[in-house]
Amino acid sequence: MLASRRRSVLAIDLGGTKIIAAAVLSTGEIVSRKYSLTLADEGPRPVINRLSSAVAEIIAQAKLKTSDIAGIGIAAAGIIGTKEGIVTTSPNLPGWRDVPLRDIIAERLGLTTYLINDASAAALGEHRFGAGRGVDNLIYLTVSTGIGGGIIMDGGLYLGADGCAGEIGHMIIETHGPQCNCGKFGCLEALASGSAMTKELVRRLNQGEKSSIIELVAGRLENITAEEVAIAARQGDSLACDIVARAANYLGIGLANLVNIFNPELIVIGGGVSKMGNMLLAPARKAIRDIAFKLPAQTARIVRARLGSNAEIIGAAVYVFEQQPKGGRKA
Amino acid sequence: MLASRRRSVLAIDLGGTKIIAAAVLSTGEIVSRKYSLTLADEGPRPVINRLSSAVAEIIAQAKLKTSDIAGIGIAAAGIIGTKEGIVTTSPNLPGWRDVPLRDIIAERLGLTTYLINDASAAALGEHRFGAGRGVDNLIYLTVSTGIGGGIIMDGGLYLGADGCAGEIGHMIIETHGPQCNCGKFGCLEALASGSAMTKELVRRLNQGEKSSIIELVAGRLENITAEEVAIAARQGDSLACDIVARAANYLGIGLANLVNIFNPELIVIGGGVSKMGNMLLAPARKAIRDIAFKLPAQTARIVRARLGSNAEIIGAAVYVFEQQPKGGRKA
Repeated sequence: MLASRRRSVLAIDLGGTKIIAAAVLSTGEIVSRKYSLTLADEGPRPVINRLSSAVAEIIAQAKLKTSDIAGIGIAAAGIIGTKEGIVTTSPNLPGWRDVPLRDIIAERLGLTTYLINDASAAALGEHRFGAGRGVDNLIYLTVSTGIGGGIIMDGGLYLGADGCAGEIGHMIIETHGPQCNCGKFGCLEALASGSAMTKELVRRLNQGEKSSIIELVAGRLENITAEEVAIAARQGDSLACDIVARAANYLGIGLANLVNIFNPELIVIGGGVSKMGNMLLAPARKAIRDIAFKLPAQTARIVRARLGSNAEIIGAAVYVFEQQPKGGRKA
Repeated sequence: MLASRRRSVLAIDLGGTKIIAAAVLSTGEIVSRKYSLTLADEGPRPVINRLSSAVAEIIAQAKLKTSDIAGIGIAAAGIIGTKEGIVTTSPNLPGWRDVPLRDIIAERLGLTTYLINDASAAALGEHRFGAGRGVDNLIYLTVSTGIGGGIIMDGGLYLGADGCAGEIGHMIIETHGPQCNCGKFGCLEALASGSAMTKELVRRLNQGEKSSIIELVAGRLENITAEEVAIAARQGDSLACDIVARAANYLGIGLANLVNIFNPELIVIGGGVSKMGNMLLAPARKAIRDIAFKLPAQTARIVRARLGSNAEIIGAAVYVFEQQPKGGRKA
């Protein structure tokens, strides 16, 4: 029994900028962790090489024998066909089109491998070991450059028919709104993400509005990120405050839609932009109260995520530990 | 075994205009059925009296003994707290505020009673005996005066924390859109329902646009319903065609959101407006292909419902037959 408890999952978080690889126990404990750059611009092949090297290093670093390894769990940014183990497309991984990442890694490393979306993994991580423990119905949202989502229903991760459910960031909430990174118009991501805030800020600066943010980035508007917007807003800069309030209101509209559709107990907000805290969450909570029906609005608590940048690897590990045979690829 | 198979559920569909009561077998067969008017304007008390009379008549008509009855299942229009058995509010039932309908009926008739939302019931009915048989993940949408929804995930009805999940009609898809029956702005219902079509048509007629529909209703604009819009569109009336195309496009945007969020195998469209058939569904399918991600868009089939106006009572019966102890109220 004790031996089986000590088995690890080799968990990988494959994002547009970084690859995190780790050995994770079924308790959620991370016993070994490695951070490397994705260098996504080089295309799929070099990235896959870096990913398998990172896994091999973790195996060596944690001195794992094959019998110690429960499997590999990859959490990747993009539209993931979990059933088939394929990255069909990814806004953050240029050149990735229908890449059978699960089978490539399974064959290369000789280990049973699973592939899920990174926000779905984070939802699972937060549900089992983070802000969502003990809750049956939960929606996880990561708000950073983009907006991703994961769905826990009746205690389990919901992945849908192909395994790509949870694309909450591309819910259209303003049909005639601004263009999104995905090419469509008026997605939640185009209105409430970090990049939506910076785009809107730059647009309004270019229209001649004033903001202290220009000094923060020494006049280089291309260096503005959501972090600078947050700093300026905290300092009381009125344009920055306005930008945050607008994004928060749209976030609230998106959350109100989710509250009406899912009647969740909990919505967990992670990602870099969630560090804005109540500046973002208070107006979002107000929008939910104003828009969603009373019964589900009273029930849904909106809280910040707890696992930070480990949510994805912990969740990927949980997914492997809890997997039934289907969906995985035996080496 | 045979005896238990012949047990009936007393199923009720409580809508804004009609009450349908029936005895339904676990095979989905309706053995007795009664239609009466709701006369909702009279308020909760007389409606509840009519509802219990209808049930009593069905018991007499079908010659049921208490041992023949598996329970009562009520499918009601409105925001239903299934867990507590309460109609919290209902746009179609004026004066209903937090009415504990389940317990009132259970006590009055001395039978175990369950209460769910009518569109959730219809989703369950279509899943077990209609267009959704054999499918694991499906979304049901009823498009009539309003738009309701029901969610089947991983083979079961999803109701959320309080039992009111599925309010798809009040997903905001156009933040600055027209006002909805619920009071908010830009809901799917305000853009793609039967009443949305007639409102938009009347607005444009009042602006001086021409349409053959005026003759269809002998000049009485207040008599225009979605049925007249459909007739005029089929006859090639250009304003009516435009109105239907616009609503269908918005319906498609709403469905694309659902496809991205749920990755369903199937979307089943019921309700009176769905009788428009491909006039409505073809543009909606196109919008899904244009807007949703390729993987889930390829998977999701959009079909018409099969059970017609019996979906709610059949689904309410299924719900009772499949219920675990929780959520019901023992008499």
